[in-house]
Amino acid sequence: MTLVVKYLVIHGPNLNLLGMREPEIYGTVTLQEINQRLLTEAETFDIKLEIIQSNSEGEIIDAIHRALSYDGIIINPAAYTHYSLAIYDALRAVKLPTVEVHLSQIHDREEFRSRSVIAPACIGQISGFGFNSYLLALRALVLHNKI
Amino acid sequence: MTLVVKYLVIHGPNLNLLGMREPEIYGTVTLQEINQRLLTEAETFDIKLEIIQSNSEGEIIDAIHRALSYDGIIINPAAYTHYSLAIYDALRAVKLPTVEVHLSQIHDREEFRSRSVIAPACIGQISGFGFNSYLLALRALVLHNKI
Amino acid sequence: MTLVVKYLVIHGPNLNLLGMREPEIYGTVTLQEINQRLLTEAETFDIKLEIIQSNSEGEIIDAIHRALSYDGIIINPAAYTHYSLAIYDALRAVKLPTVEVHLSQIHDREEFRSRSVIAPACIGQISGFGFNSYLLALRALVLHNKI
Amino acid sequence: MTLVVKYLVIHGPNLNLLGMREPEIYGTVTLQEINQRLLTEAETFDIKLEIIQSNSEGEIIDAIHRALSYDGIIINPAAYTHYSLAIYDALRAVKLPTVEVHLSQIHDREEFRSRSVIAPACIGQISGFGFNSYLLALRALVLHNKI
Amino acid sequence: MTLVVKYLVIHGPNLNLLGMREPEIYGTVTLQEINQRLLTEAETFDIKLEIIQSNSEGEIIDAIHRALSYDGIIINPAAYTHYSLAIYDALRAVKLPTVEVHLSQIHDREEFRSRSVIAPACIGQISGFGFNSYLLALRALVLHNKI
Amino acid sequence: MTLVVKYLVIHGPNLNLLGMREPEIYGTVTLQEINQRLLTEAETFDIKLEIIQSNSEGEIIDAIHRALSYDGIIINPAAYTHYSLAIYDALRAVKLPTVEVHLSQIHDREEFRSRSVIAPACIGQISGFGFNSYLLALRALVLHNKI
Amino acid sequence: MTLVVKYLVIHGPNLNLLGMREPEIYGTVTLQEINQRLLTEAETFDIKLEIIQSNSEGEIIDAIHRALSYDGIIINPAAYTHYSLAIYDALRAVKLPTVEVHLSQIHDREEFRSRSVIAPACIGQISGFGFNSYLLALRALVLHNKI
Amino acid sequence: MTLVVKYLVIHGPNLNLLGMREPEIYGTVTLQEINQRLLTEAETFDIKLEIIQSNSEGEIIDAIHRALSYDGIIINPAAYTHYSLAIYDALRAVKLPTVEVHLSQIHDREEFRSRSVIAPACIGQISGFGFNSYLLALRALVLHNKI
Amino acid sequence: MTLVVKYLVIHGPNLNLLGMREPEIYGTVTLQEINQRLLTEAETFDIKLEIIQSNSEGEIIDAIHRALSYDGIIINPAAYTHYSLAIYDALRAVKLPTVEVHLSQIHDREEFRSRSVIAPACIGQISGFGFNSYLLALRALVLHNKI
Amino acid sequence: MTLVVKYLVIHGPNLNLLGMREPEIYGTVTLQEINQRLLTEAETFDIKLEIIQSNSEGEIIDAIHRALSYDGIIINPAAYTHYSLAIYDALRAVKLPTVEVHLSQIHDREEFRSRSVIAPACIGQISGFGFNSYLLALRALVLHNKI
Amino acid sequence: MTLVVKYLVIHGPNLNLLGMREPEIYGTVTLQEINQRLLTEAETFDIKLEIIQSNSEGEIIDAIHRALSYDGIIINPAAYTHYSLAIYDALRAVKLPTVEVHLSQIHDREEFRSRSVIAPACIGQISGFGFNSYLLALRALVLHNKI
Amino acid sequence: MTLVVKYLVIHGPNLNLLGMREPEIYGTVTLQEINQRLLTEAETFDIKLEIIQSNSEGEIIDAIHRALSYDGIIINPAAYTHYSLAIYDALRAVKLPTVEVHLSQIHDREEFRSRSVIAPACIGQISGFGFNSYLLALRALVLHNKI
Repeated sequence: MTLVVKYLVIHGPNLNLLGMREPEIYGTVTLQEINQRLLTEAETFDIKLEIIQSNSEGEIIDAIHRALSYDGIIINPAAYTHYSLAIYDALRAVKLPTVEVHLSQIHDREEFRSRSVIAPACIGQISGFGFNSYLLALRALVLHNKI
Repeated sequence: MTLVVKYLVIHGPNLNLLGMREPEIYGTVTLQEINQRLLTEAETFDIKLEIIQSNSEGEIIDAIHRALSYDGIIINPAAYTHYSLAIYDALRAVKLPTVEVHLSQIHDREEFRSRSVIAPACIGQISGFGFNSYLLALRALVLHNKI
Repeated sequence: MTLVVKYLVIHGPNLNLLGMREPEIYGTVTLQEINQRLLTEAETFDIKLEIIQSNSEGEIIDAIHRALSYDGIIINPAAYTHYSLAIYDALRAVKLPTVEVHLSQIHDREEFRSRSVIAPACIGQISGFGFNSYLLALRALVLHNKI
Repeated sequence: MTLVVKYLVIHGPNLNLLGMREPEIYGTVTLQEINQRLLTEAETFDIKLEIIQSNSEGEIIDAIHRALSYDGIIINPAAYTHYSLAIYDALRAVKLPTVEVHLSQIHDREEFRSRSVIAPACIGQISGFGFNSYLLALRALVLHNKI
Repeated sequence: MTLVVKYLVIHGPNLNLLGMREPEIYGTVTLQEINQRLLTEAETFDIKLEIIQSNSEGEIIDAIHRALSYDGIIINPAAYTHYSLAIYDALRAVKLPTVEVHLSQIHDREEFRSRSVIAPACIGQISGFGFNSYLLALRALVLHNKI
Repeated sequence: MTLVVKYLVIHGPNLNLLGMREPEIYGTVTLQEINQRLLTEAETFDIKLEIIQSNSEGEIIDAIHRALSYDGIIINPAAYTHYSLAIYDALRAVKLPTVEVHLSQIHDREEFRSRSVIAPACIGQISGFGFNSYLLALRALVLHNKI
Repeated sequence: MTLVVKYLVIHGPNLNLLGMREPEIYGTVTLQEINQRLLTEAETFDIKLEIIQSNSEGEIIDAIHRALSYDGIIINPAAYTHYSLAIYDALRAVKLPTVEVHLSQIHDREEFRSRSVIAPACIGQISGFGFNSYLLALRALVLHNKI
Repeated sequence: MTLVVKYLVIHGPNLNLLGMREPEIYGTVTLQEINQRLLTEAETFDIKLEIIQSNSEGEIIDAIHRALSYDGIIINPAAYTHYSLAIYDALRAVKLPTVEVHLSQIHDREEFRSRSVIAPACIGQISGFGFNSYLLALRALVLHNKI
Repeated sequence: MTLVVKYLVIHGPNLNLLGMREPEIYGTVTLQEINQRLLTEAETFDIKLEIIQSNSEGEIIDAIHRALSYDGIIINPAAYTHYSLAIYDALRAVKLPTVEVHLSQIHDREEFRSRSVIAPACIGQISGFGFNSYLLALRALVLHNKI
Repeated sequence: MTLVVKYLVIHGPNLNLLGMREPEIYGTVTLQEINQRLLTEAETFDIKLEIIQSNSEGEIIDAIHRALSYDGIIINPAAYTHYSLAIYDALRAVKLPTVEVHLSQIHDREEFRSRSVIAPACIGQISGFGFNSYLLALRALVLHNKI
Repeated sequence: MTLVVKYLVIHGPNLNLLGMREPEIYGTVTLQEINQRLLTEAETFDIKLEIIQSNSEGEIIDAIHRALSYDGIIINPAAYTHYSLAIYDALRAVKLPTVEVHLSQIHDREEFRSRSVIAPACIGQISGFGFNSYLLALRALVLHNKI
Repeated sequence: MTLVVKYLVIHGPNLNLLGMREPEIYGTVTLQEINQRLLTEAETFDIKLEIIQSNSEGEIIDAIHRALSYDGIIINPAAYTHYSLAIYDALRAVKLPTVEVHLSQIHDREEFRSRSVIAPACIGQISGFGFNSYLLALRALVLHNKI
């Protein structure tokens, strides 16, 4: 029985440093605190989360493959957003409803940050709301799966 | 006293036909139903919504100007997303926290739909979740204004 | 009973000045004369025409929406040809057989005149034949609707 | 005496297969049937037609040269539309009123089909109306030569 | 008798907010004050000014059409500078001497601000001098019409 | 009965000079020797080959049309690879399984050699193996037709 | 003595999912079955194969380095085809005859799939023939090494 | 005491021929006459002008360096407008208020004349008013320095 | 003995109409007169000329192949200048000293006329001198072959 | 106490093969010899070096993260220079003075080698001096840290 | 009386080193020898030559201005060919028949050498024939001036 | 005897203002102080330096030509970096080992500063280390000449 709903949350490269460096840009919230917020919120929906962080493109693809039986993916691909066709292919292959998340507005920074090669493999994209982007993404998946 | 929080919701050109045509793409939900959902949700946050729809670039700019004393804007600029620098300027001028909303994934359709000239004037962008994009945008504004 | 066939004819921005200025380029035929020719020709096919001219993008979209129950559209989008994705969306939404008309050859003038963002929403395009472009468009709609 | 009006009709490469292959795209009408329709229509205008089909760029240019004493040309350059500057030069040299014809909307297919290098040598372009494009082109030439 | 010289002054989208928002960029001078300065200056030349402001592309075109009997136009197209081919066409059609005005240096801001599609329909362009740009434009028109 | 399997082999422009000029690039094998190798190999599969060489775009299209009843095509379009949309259209029209062949690596030479407009009409492409490219293409067709 | 001929076969990212997902695109053949076919075919040529699959760019480079004493490489770089200059450099460094393999026609899919940065480091490229691409690549290497 | 206000006026390459060649484009006014007009006008403001003309990029830069103690610069960079980053750097270095002047509309001529690399180092640009452009520039500097 | 020096002169598409049409552009000299001038001039150098004109790309390539034993080629590729990679390949293959000739300045006309894909296969290019371009090309070949 | 100064030296993908392959390009010096030279030189400055080589993007990022307490980084990103936005982000995050090193002139090789996405995160770049580039980089860091 | 015909010959930057460096590319002929050849040839036509060489853009423009009373110009702009709009303007201003000369084929070298901004101001261009390019240019001017 | 090693140091346009203007960007060190540092450092290597500064492209080229007998060049081309093909040609002609120097990171500023047309004529490039860039360049030349 698939009574338990389970999502995979992927934090891409360099996000492990969140809250520890460049607080004027990224705020002082650490990745641990974001994860805690996500877990608390997920509990209110009776959803289980597996959360990983990796700086390696290959490890992220491996994680996506292992999530075949899950119910959805939340991914912040960070710098890989802009060139990792391999992650794009992985998401296309597993065909899970996936939400792309960005802490900051990707349309409002350096030029190379405005294009996402990941987006066409996702059901939607949420960007610009800081750590709230993750909470909104969780809710978006829940709303999506209800339909 | 500014006890009442008030948001402006703007539906751009052609959205008045929502739910009436091309249901295989846009679903069968009408604009009236989306507005009802938004009003209900807003009430749970004790927020007042002014909702408008217009096919005219000039009217949308006028509406943005009139919203100077509001607390935020939710805008689905539809086709104007891709070329209306005038709407962009209007949003920059009033300086209200604004969330850009799209029903479908703008990165996953015709080429001309992947670029937003509006985005740099917004705090964030939510796209791809159908009418849920609006509900998530409302919540995003609420979360943003709490900070 | 929908015994009467009805087409909407849309003249875009600045066409109200036709025949009054720059006769060396646009000839001396006025918009009134073109409309008269169209009405006469339409009568021979037992077709009713509603003819409008507007300089406003929003008004043109409103007119397209109101034409939902018509049998076809003839549109000369003039300068909007090259950037109005909003008119393109309007035509896509109402799904009426539409013919795009241009007085002059759009491939043979300034660079910015060679691209049409409207065309993909039309069944065909006729350009270069002066006011005869309109008469040919009327006939094209008639021939199209026979099939 | 030039009592007889005479037009050259040119069908470009691969059009000889029309109606025999890919009927879901090009319909079931053969080139022979189109030609018959054209001849019948031409008779009502007392116009003589010479009709040729060729897959060879050089033969098409030769035919255009031979048409020096004719009163107009109707050409469907098919794939040559997009790169044959030599056909463009030939049309420029003979200076006959020429109408460019396409069965389908060239602005609505693969990218490489949206640009015509032939168009600047023509008085007008008609595209998208199936075999009716030819009949409209014939009428366009007649209307043009009346002026 | 055309004893009275009359110019049309057009303020484009969002300029009604001038002096009320972002004073660090646009200064504290309001549109009313600029208009007063213009009217005073015009009097010294015995020139009558009609001054309008509109956020709507269509209304601006209508105003240009109504100015057919005037002696010149001063236009600050604001955001429409960069994409309104319809305003460009309107200016081309009425053929009045027109001066394009910008408060700030359009060559020194965001990329999209460096291209003007309006300029080729104007006799000259003045940019970068704040509200003095308008006064210089008035003088430029006077000098131009003397020749 | 279609007991005999028959393929058309097309050598494009300038390939008749193979082995006679620039041996340091193209080797010393002549087109006759390649054809002999192909015929011998085809016999082992009980396949009949018709082999042609032409420098003329029109003749190549004619040959493709005549091959309607064949079971496959092997084509080395040589220089036409990069611009002959007419050959592309011909291959699309006859809908035979076609393999594109190149003697040298098209991705490893002058810039203009890296793009193929023919490829989208083929089931596959083999390049870089000298005359072995042809033998591999023959085998590829046989393997393809087995499925 | 180097009596034994040995090739390295590299399957790039996401190919481990082959045959398990999107069968309508990639067929139902699994990677295990392809490997079995390759091993059987290799035996008929008395060739030893080392076969690896990895989702990690670094691991693929490591494998290429370890293959220094082998006689050739067959590589399907999958998504890395389009941006991994590091794999390109690795192939250039070991200087082994390498054949690039693709299951589908890379010229006939999304735009970003048409460019290969790997190709200039390979002797040839075979694409479009499904799992037969691998068998043809094996034969291509054998034919190449005979010369 | 810096009681005397002093501006440098720079005429760029080929302007020494003004009035002597191509009068149909540049009019019959010579550079000497323009300078006389400028000196007369400057006197009415109690401003001293140093006026130079040079065809050498290096000499123009030297002149800008020597103007360190002046109060402003009026420059018509002529052809250097479009590529002389060295003049741009010189203007940036001396940091004087500078007005860029052009006799004709730079946005309305050959393509290469529409881009100015000098503009970002200037407070404003005046183009299209013939020799009046210089007089307007003088006034613009005076107005600017009052603020 | 190769006592006789022999050159091939190729006139490309549409040049057979020379002197008969558009005399205001191409002058009134016919191709026959140019050929006569070339033959007379060649005699003074004791050189034999074979002169051909063709509108067909394939025929031009055939002619180049047949010229293998000649001493040089003079070619005016006309419209094929800009896209015929097949003629470029043919010239590369026969490796004869070849001079590219144009009647008018190819750098001074429509954009598409400024690029030559033929040039890299030639020793030099002469353009802009009307029929004298041919005479200069003949002399250029003679001078070249002396070295 | 931070008495000991410590730098991280990163050799990117394929550099482990240095000196072993393509000596005509990269010379015969091995990575071990370069490291020895660096260690000897560092001793003269009383600096400690940690030196790593990796073919994996993820491992390089991990190493950069671990270097948070170091005094500087010397990195030769090899092929990752041109596309690894993830390494760029890592360097931005740790904010250590970093010098980018290349053995050969990156501006003088294949096109794709001329752009560095890493450079904007570094204080400087040294390229073209073979293994001396590393020694110069070490000195550059020492000079930089003195300021 | 203007009995004497006089041409200006301009050698652009770095040509003074001709024959002294890189003989494998530019041959061993020095500029002095080329000039001697030109003077001898000019005598046979009774033409006087003024010959200059300069590395300075400004000096070349000065020389062009001084040549107002001459009968023609032969110019090898060397590197200035590709960006000196100032020399282009100078040639436009003096309106003398000018021939552009290049020693090597500009279409057959580095990319940046294929575009000439000088050409549109010249009657023709001769490139690729080494020092013979100058002799052919002299003859081209003579032939041109006869017309 | 060439016992004395001699280098030419070239400071390009506007560098004479160094230390006198914009100290927040370029620091307070003057060109005289940099030169003194260079001369002192050069003495420790027994090297003679000739140091020049010029704002004129022509003078810089002349200086490069005069340096034919020197042992190396250090050049900071400043703004000429980005377009002076003439300086590039001069460096190519004299064939001396040349090091390109920049005070700031050229990859990290305005777009037009990231491309160097000079670099391909240099053995290496050093940028970003302020005046230390010059000292490192001197050392780089010494190291280079030892090999």
